[in-house]
Amino acid sequence: MIVTKFGGSSLACAKQLEKVKNIVLSNPERCVVVVSAPGKRNSDDIKITDLLYTLRSHIKYGVPDNDILNMILSRYQEIEEELHLDMNIVDEMRNFFNSLDKDCSSGEVVSRGEHYCAKLVARYLGFTFVDAADILFFTFDGDIDYEKSQAATKAAIEKYGRIVVPGFYGVYPNNDIHLFSRGGSDITGAYMSVFAKASVYENWTDVSGIYAVDPRLAKDAKIIRSISYDELRELSCMGANVLHEDSVKPCQDAEIPIHILNTNEPENEGTIIKANATSLTPITGIAGKKGFVSFTLHKRRMSKEIGFVYRALKIFTKYNVNIEHLPTGMNTVSFIIEEENVRSTMHKIVADLESELDCEVELERDIGMLAIVGEEMRENIIPVSSVLEILKENKIDINCVVKAPDEVTMLVGVKESLLSSCVSVVYSGLRKQGLI
Amino acid sequence: MIVTKFGGSSLACAKQLEKVKNIVLSNPERCVVVVSAPGKRNSDDIKITDLLYTLRSHIKYGVPDNDILNMILSRYQEIEEELHLDMNIVDEMRNFFNSLDKDCSSGEVVSRGEHYCAKLVARYLGFTFVDAADILFFTFDGDIDYEKSQAATKAAIEKYGRIVVPGFYGVYPNNDIHLFSRGGSDITGAYMSVFAKASVYENWTDVSGIYAVDPRLAKDAKIIRSISYDELRELSCMGANVLHEDSVKPCQDAEIPIHILNTNEPENEGTIIKANATSLTPITGIAGKKGFVSFTLHKRRMSKEIGFVYRALKIFTKYNVNIEHLPTGMNTVSFIIEEENVRSTMHKIVADLESELDCEVELERDIGMLAIVGEEMRENIIPVSSVLEILKENKIDINCVVKAPDEVTMLVGVKESLLSSCVSVVYSGLRKQGLI
Repeated sequence: MIVTKFGGSSLACAKQLEKVKNIVLSNPERCVVVVSAPGKRNSDDIKITDLLYTLRSHIKYGVPDNDILNMILSRYQEIEEELHLDMNIVDEMRNFFNSLDKDCSSGEVVSRGEHYCAKLVARYLGFTFVDAADILFFTFDGDIDYEKSQAATKAAIEKYGRIVVPGFYGVYPNNDIHLFSRGGSDITGAYMSVFAKASVYENWTDVSGIYAVDPRLAKDAKIIRSISYDELRELSCMGANVLHEDSVKPCQDAEIPIHILNTNEPENEGTIIKANATSLTPITGIAGKKGFVSFTLHKRRMSKEIGFVYRALKIFTKYNVNIEHLPTGMNTVSFIIEEENVRSTMHKIVADLESELDCEVELERDIGMLAIVGEEMRENIIPVSSVLEILKENKIDINCVVKAPDEVTMLVGVKESLLSSCVSVVYSGLRKQGLI
Repeated sequence: MIVTKFGGSSLACAKQLEKVKNIVLSNPERCVVVVSAPGKRNSDDIKITDLLYTLRSHIKYGVPDNDILNMILSRYQEIEEELHLDMNIVDEMRNFFNSLDKDCSSGEVVSRGEHYCAKLVARYLGFTFVDAADILFFTFDGDIDYEKSQAATKAAIEKYGRIVVPGFYGVYPNNDIHLFSRGGSDITGAYMSVFAKASVYENWTDVSGIYAVDPRLAKDAKIIRSISYDELRELSCMGANVLHEDSVKPCQDAEIPIHILNTNEPENEGTIIKANATSLTPITGIAGKKGFVSFTLHKRRMSKEIGFVYRALKIFTKYNVNIEHLPTGMNTVSFIIEEENVRSTMHKIVADLESELDCEVELERDIGMLAIVGEEMRENIIPVSSVLEILKENKIDINCVVKAPDEVTMLVGVKESLLSSCVSVVYSGLRKQGLI
């Protein structure tokens, strides 16, 4: 049993949907198909999801919405016509949107992108459409209701055999629609895989796998063939944009491999994400993320003062700030934080730290963090040293370095303006040495 | 005005004291002389301070103490006789010790090592003996009473011109003796320098300055000519055994340079410790310290959980544990601690962390921390990278690396059993490259 999820670009037009059909029907194990909303056909297209959010504003504020609605409907109509599906999806959609009143929720409106797309795809594949509202249940806290969802999903598969499910949403206990965050169809696919005990979760995209580095920063960016869940999550956290990061944990917990594949090149082997991924190189991937700020606390003999860092963290916690990293020296400790989390509070935090802890605080902004990820980082000196050698050769000075015990990621802080070139030189340097 | 402090080896016998006299009298600025107790004349000697602690036990438990007392007295008698001081110091000492009852404090007994040594030295130099009990005052909390001590010290210098002061002790407000920790005569010298507004604090020892690395680990260990207070303190914290670490802060606050000199080679330029030390090399020194343990907490998506590290530190603080370092990854945070601080509590701490934070905790013992210190570490990639390159060349794997922003110290965790060879290879590697 395989769960497949197709992203927007695989669903953008009839030509793409033909590829989807070939892929799904070529293997009878592919029983569950999760779909996004139709993606952009070209760079001028506006995303369906963005159009739906806008439509909802029109409805909410009572502003005529014909142009927007027609833009949305035309996309579905085009697909229906090109595939000769003859199901009058546009009438159904128009009736639905016209029935909404001002109090409709954004979930109610926005979820329809995936909902109607799944209906088209089900008809085209000859599978049964199963509404996510009937199988994916949330508690009022926004957590998945595992037991109820699993039972409903299994029952649907047993009853219908092969099904198409819209991604991105589920329902609260009162049947109100709850959306995952943007890109959340990946998460729907992950949960379907878990509930259906899939042998693999196939995530079909428009790239042939996960790049070891952002291809905009390195011309010879290679595809990672095999990566561990941990490595992937670390790359995702640090800005590598592949799967929705929340889709990894459910699969990891259930030990279901995730296979990233390309709808446009289905023969390409793609990237496998699994627990004991065997990378051919010590380093698996590199990512960079901008927008960090560091609070460096200087206090002599700090390391003799029990509870010093604890009291500092109490202040950060008071301001609801999450600390990304805390490199320490003998007389300093730094708190590295995403600036967006402290934009309005950073100066208050400095004042509180200085007055409550009687220390000097230095605030540094515009820090970029470079993350170099690989299972062999855990204990091996070679990858750690090589990264710094490359920075040295390229005369790139650093703000901080952290490699924690038993960690697959090494982090290097640099000036934000240097981050892109850092990613680029480190990648090509490691590539030359065969380390990535 | 110069404050000079002479360590035990400079006071071990008449021959050494002659050198002290030559040094002090060769510069009329040398007005305040702080002395330790007489040091060991050879490796068979027992330290006076250890004899005094033992003597106190004899007195406390009513066990005859003649042998011990005679061992102590004979050292002072020998010095008095060899220098022809003719002051019957032994009678004075014997009367004092015989007058003590079982309730005497260890401070009362042990401080006499420095006390009587200062009397001998004062007579020999022709300076006035000033008891630390009359000029160095503590509050009942054990903090220095700055105002009172400064006034008394200045008055004594004004009144007597050139004085000799015993190190290692002062008095509480009720005149009970309070000892600094072992090696505390260095601290007395530091405070005398501050109170006397000395132009320099000369600390005379039996080495020609501070070594860049433990000379037992590197044959070609060089002397550091100039080092900043911050660098010195970091080296001291990490096991480099030079000055008592508490003696640095008072001088740093008062901006008084500390000059480490060798009584046996007074012409040697020694080591200057000051704020803007200009090192000739990017790295100033290396030290290693054994006996660390790391608690590594693994939790997926930890970095999204606000207050996670805070709650972990709350547990460590509850057990009164000071955290030395906290390297972080994306899904791990490690707490690196001196094992002696958690020897009896480490398993309880693991249990508390696991149950209260719902995470996996991995305990690793026998970690050695290598500290590489240099003002140029703050931002420069070269020293940081070079250290790791050397470890790589020597195939030494690492546990963790931390270089905090604006920090002069880079820390590398290695297996404890490899620490000595790490110190040695890193030193010789850096030396070859001219980096230290």
